[in-house]
Amino acid sequence: MSSWIPWAAAGVCVAALVVVAVYARLALSAERGSDRMRMISDAIRGGAMTFIKREYRYVAVFAALMVVLIAVALRSQNGWMTALCYILGTLFSLGAGFLGLYVSTRVNDRTAQAASRGPGAALKVAFHSGAVMGLAVAGLGLLGLTICYLIFEVGLGLYNAASIILGFSLGASSVALFARVGGGIFTKATDVGSQLVSSSGEELPADELKNPSMVAENVGDNVGEVAGMGADLYESFVAAIVAPIAIAASGVIFQKLGSRGLVLPLAIAAAGIVASVLGTLFVRTKEGADGRAVQRALTLPTYGAAALSTVASFFLVWGIIGWKNIGMFWPLLMGVLAGCVIAMTSEYFTSAHYKPVERVAESAGLGPAIAIIRGLSFGMLSVIAPVVVVVIAIAISFFTGNRVIHAGGGIYAIGLAALGMLSTTGMIVSVDAAGPVGDNAFAIAELSGLDTEAVEVTSNLNAVGNTTSAIAKGFAIGSAALAALALFAAYAQATGFTKADVTGDYKFLVGLFLGALVPFVFSGLALNAVVRAASALLEEVKRQFREIPGLRAGEKGVEADHARCVDVTTRVAVYEMLVPGALAIVAPLLVGVLLGSGSLAGFLAGAVATGFILATMMSNTGGSWANARKLIEGGALGGKGSRAHAGALIADTVGDPLKDTSGPSINILIKVMAIVSLIFVPLFMK
Amino acid sequence: MSSWIPWAAAGVCVAALVVVAVYARLALSAERGSDRMRMISDAIRGGAMTFIKREYRYVAVFAALMVVLIAVALRSQNGWMTALCYILGTLFSLGAGFLGLYVSTRVNDRTAQAASRGPGAALKVAFHSGAVMGLAVAGLGLLGLTICYLIFEVGLGLYNAASIILGFSLGASSVALFARVGGGIFTKATDVGSQLVSSSGEELPADELKNPSMVAENVGDNVGEVAGMGADLYESFVAAIVAPIAIAASGVIFQKLGSRGLVLPLAIAAAGIVASVLGTLFVRTKEGADGRAVQRALTLPTYGAAALSTVASFFLVWGIIGWKNIGMFWPLLMGVLAGCVIAMTSEYFTSAHYKPVERVAESAGLGPAIAIIRGLSFGMLSVIAPVVVVVIAIAISFFTGNRVIHAGGGIYAIGLAALGMLSTTGMIVSVDAAGPVGDNAFAIAELSGLDTEAVEVTSNLNAVGNTTSAIAKGFAIGSAALAALALFAAYAQATGFTKADVTGDYKFLVGLFLGALVPFVFSGLALNAVVRAASALLEEVKRQFREIPGLRAGEKGVEADHARCVDVTTRVAVYEMLVPGALAIVAPLLVGVLLGSGSLAGFLAGAVATGFILATMMSNTGGSWANARKLIEGGALGGKGSRAHAGALIADTVGDPLKDTSGPSINILIKVMAIVSLIFVPLFMK
Repeated sequence: MSSWIPWAAAGVCVAALVVVAVYARLALSAERGSDRMRMISDAIRGGAMTFIKREYRYVAVFAALMVVLIAVALRSQNGWMTALCYILGTLFSLGAGFLGLYVSTRVNDRTAQAASRGPGAALKVAFHSGAVMGLAVAGLGLLGLTICYLIFEVGLGLYNAASIILGFSLGASSVALFARVGGGIFTKATDVGSQLVSSSGEELPADELKNPSMVAENVGDNVGEVAGMGADLYESFVAAIVAPIAIAASGVIFQKLGSRGLVLPLAIAAAGIVASVLGTLFVRTKEGADGRAVQRALTLPTYGAAALSTVASFFLVWGIIGWKNIGMFWPLLMGVLAGCVIAMTSEYFTSAHYKPVERVAESAGLGPAIAIIRGLSFGMLSVIAPVVVVVIAIAISFFTGNRVIHAGGGIYAIGLAALGMLSTTGMIVSVDAAGPVGDNAFAIAELSGLDTEAVEVTSNLNAVGNTTSAIAKGFAIGSAALAALALFAAYAQATGFTKADVTGDYKFLVGLFLGALVPFVFSGLALNAVVRAASALLEEVKRQFREIPGLRAGEKGVEADHARCVDVTTRVAVYEMLVPGALAIVAPLLVGVLLGSGSLAGFLAGAVATGFILATMMSNTGGSWANARKLIEGGALGGKGSRAHAGALIADTVGDPLKDTSGPSINILIKVMAIVSLIFVPLFMK
Repeated sequence: MSSWIPWAAAGVCVAALVVVAVYARLALSAERGSDRMRMISDAIRGGAMTFIKREYRYVAVFAALMVVLIAVALRSQNGWMTALCYILGTLFSLGAGFLGLYVSTRVNDRTAQAASRGPGAALKVAFHSGAVMGLAVAGLGLLGLTICYLIFEVGLGLYNAASIILGFSLGASSVALFARVGGGIFTKATDVGSQLVSSSGEELPADELKNPSMVAENVGDNVGEVAGMGADLYESFVAAIVAPIAIAASGVIFQKLGSRGLVLPLAIAAAGIVASVLGTLFVRTKEGADGRAVQRALTLPTYGAAALSTVASFFLVWGIIGWKNIGMFWPLLMGVLAGCVIAMTSEYFTSAHYKPVERVAESAGLGPAIAIIRGLSFGMLSVIAPVVVVVIAIAISFFTGNRVIHAGGGIYAIGLAALGMLSTTGMIVSVDAAGPVGDNAFAIAELSGLDTEAVEVTSNLNAVGNTTSAIAKGFAIGSAALAALALFAAYAQATGFTKADVTGDYKFLVGLFLGALVPFVFSGLALNAVVRAASALLEEVKRQFREIPGLRAGEKGVEADHARCVDVTTRVAVYEMLVPGALAIVAPLLVGVLLGSGSLAGFLAGAVATGFILATMMSNTGGSWANARKLIEGGALGGKGSRAHAGALIADTVGDPLKDTSGPSINILIKVMAIVSLIFVPLFMK
């Protein structure tokens, strides 16, 4: 049985990619809008391509360096094969990101156009585009991994096939680093930069399109939410599959389960993809639906897919590793539940329908400082539920894992819990990637003077997108924590590290302190980068106003150089991510080589714990400020122009880089550090 | 030799207390100011007494509950004796706090009066007051501890005398919880509340003294900086002495060193007190000295005392545990150096003379949000050096400890490192407690229309106070981390916990995650509390303006009810600290009882690591905003009323509770949790 499962998984992926093609065709066949709408949409697309071209160039250089590092450092362990997997992981992730971005930036005007027919039509176009990204992420992720598995484990039957396959995961991490960190810096630099432009005292042209920062801002949404989030969850998905495989490839799990333990993760991931595809089919809403109904149209199928995938997992565990090991279903279930609780907590603390955001909005009436203090306070408290539920998932996984497969089963179970949370990645990304399309459609509808009803429809879509984005962020960080923990478990097994000596030796404790430090340093660098890139954008806008005659006056035929604006910001954003990016790779290598593998274990544990907490806090804090602002702009507490509004605006600007740059970047940080540690284990063992 | 050392230590303490009496007499014999100056000063003193009365009432109830808890939970281990030590620790800390506050609130007008004779005279009065607090903290701390030692170890010779003495440290912690957390909430609620009052649109009376929040704000400085910081460092000092004693009382250290290992910490602490007393004698400056010279007059003797104490430690280690164990001097030296590096880092990131604050001030020109993002970014990066230096101190301590006294010596060395950093606590607190006196003198000089030269002198004193406060904060958090680590080491030894099972069992990891969570939750609660208490103050001010006829118009003979303003804020502040306070006591007990002692070890390690990082970050972030504002108010970047000034004002208000409430509160949190864990070890052992 375990011999045909990888083939079946590959088949599922190919089928999913066929569905991707269908969705892409459907999305792109929708009617385009007026000339002005096309013009704006084309400018956004052009900007996105400018960004991605420059980014991919940097990725290529980075990947080349990594390939050399892997091939040389692991030369005695078939390092070139690991490097091969690394290249494949990189290419597949880039492919998924490109595909998603290609479609999403082409359907902005189409979605706005469809909005004039009603919310049902608009949702259809936006979601088809989102599903392209979502299913491509899941399909390409599992497909690439399965190909590696078939070559090195099944085909060549290498003793260290599982370690070689890890290269695929590191490739995913490298792309995620650029897409999420670089993209996160870019997207918030454009937001903050636009804010700076409008408050800089510059006189702005009446036609917003003549403002050179306008397109960059819309490009940022696509780059951050579509490509960034996609690469982030692609990485988590791959890591969650690869970690239990690495654990099952040796030790007690292999003795007990043989290759069945290796194929189980592939099977569960494939089932998750099937559930996701089915889920996407149920996303629809009636014309005339309000915001709530649109929201429901997206969330119900998401929960449905999760439920379906969970049921399927039960039978897969039963069928593949047998009824006597059915206890391994519990970790999977715990992973799903933890994901839901984390997502619900994010919603509670960041949605305008609940107390926290209301309180923050009220505080804004007392001034920006009070709103900021309040938001920070709620953000800190919002971490309680996620940590508690993750801790419960860890405890139950360890407990059942050790009971079902004796000592050593616990760490395999941690891997399964991460996989449980992530099995419906395809669906989660689909829903999330529809958000920026709605966002851009809203901008286009406003800028091109569509009728109020169409604007209203796109505005609803935009608001829904904010909530789904908060939920996806919750999943992203929760899954990052579990995936990193699973990799940590694999690392611990690979190094033979079991017990940390905390009183006889300094190494574990020292590692712990340093590991706890890294997420703070990383965040500090990311925040600094946003300020720098935003300042660069501001300067470029000022330069264009100064040097392009007639632009500020809004003369006909004079256009802002949007592409250059994007390019300048991209250059700074990607340049500024080099130090934090290098930190993610170098820090674990340094700790491992200088202080040894035991210290690195403490390092990873510390980094995952604080990283998870800090990222959740920053995401939720930023989200609550953003929605407090929205709440006030919706008319609460005096509405636009009130004292509360001024306060909330400032708080929101502070929150922007917290929730979309430094917060999500930490997801990548903890996964990258864990996978680097795992792959380079041979370097740390004396 | 080891038999007379405790007596000598007690003698040193008594001598120090005589010096305290002399300084108090000198400070109080200075000439008082004009009627108006006296009136303001008396109002501040009255407010401080209102605060302290209410606080002490809560402390009494809390302490009574703790006494019952200790006596019952530890009934089979002579719990009532531990409870007795607890009571003594509480009373001595309250005594030191009361003494310091009594004098500092009585010399405000005297310092302002002396300022008309020049900076030398003003510094003398302010510093004499500070030295009362500083030497009382150190003298009473060591004296109380030595009394407990003489009774239970020397007198009764109980087998668990060291554990019983820990009660004294827990008493110190309880007071610190109220003084630092409750006091921190109070002091920033008055600052933020005053800010709210002045921006609330209320018309304020021309005579600032008729503004009911004015006195509360000045009371806050005394309560936070004098009583709060004093209780904080009292607790650290006591914990740093008690931890190595607890470790040396059993295990390999006792076999090797016998009671010499117990008296060494007492001797080093006593030497530190002598060095501090000598240091206080050298604080003086010429009339006509500028701000820099005043600064030097305070810092040089501080470093001098630290150097002297280090040299004395060398000879004490040699004399008491012998030349062959002279290696134990290294941890002491590392502690001193780590303290200096942490203090210098704080200064670099928070002083207006260096790049970070300049950059933050520049960012303020782009708006408050940018200043806040920049400040957060620098705050996060400011943690690097402190963590690295603490990590080096841990590594060297462990390494030399294990080498000199074989395995097991490492944890004793950690205790000595903490003691090294803290030995000159007396001097550090003396310098720090002079700050708020200068601050209040400045306020009095301004409010009562002293001539510009006198105002200038007090203003310089105030500015110097900001820097010394930042340095003391660095010491407070650094020492809290090392003291908590030392207690952690003692805990590990007491539970026989040596190795953490991180792959076979979930308990250590789960504890680690929960421990890392607690500082965030605690901070979130503290920040919320500040907002609530500030709102209460705002309401009370509004009520007084509404209900006291003629107050707003500034009619003669109509006075604001300052005492009530203080009382209302105190009530909310102390009420709001109950939940975080209970968390500090209950969380470790719950983890220990429910998940066992191994989990609690992970919990403590996680809490100390994140707590140290988070507290340092919040302190430095807040400090950089405060001084960016000062820099601008000094005329940079457009000066008062500029766009940059408006931005910096908002950032400073956000930073106030970070640097003076939640940040320093974490110092207490990690020490309280560690000492609670250590004392209640019998509950967690099956």
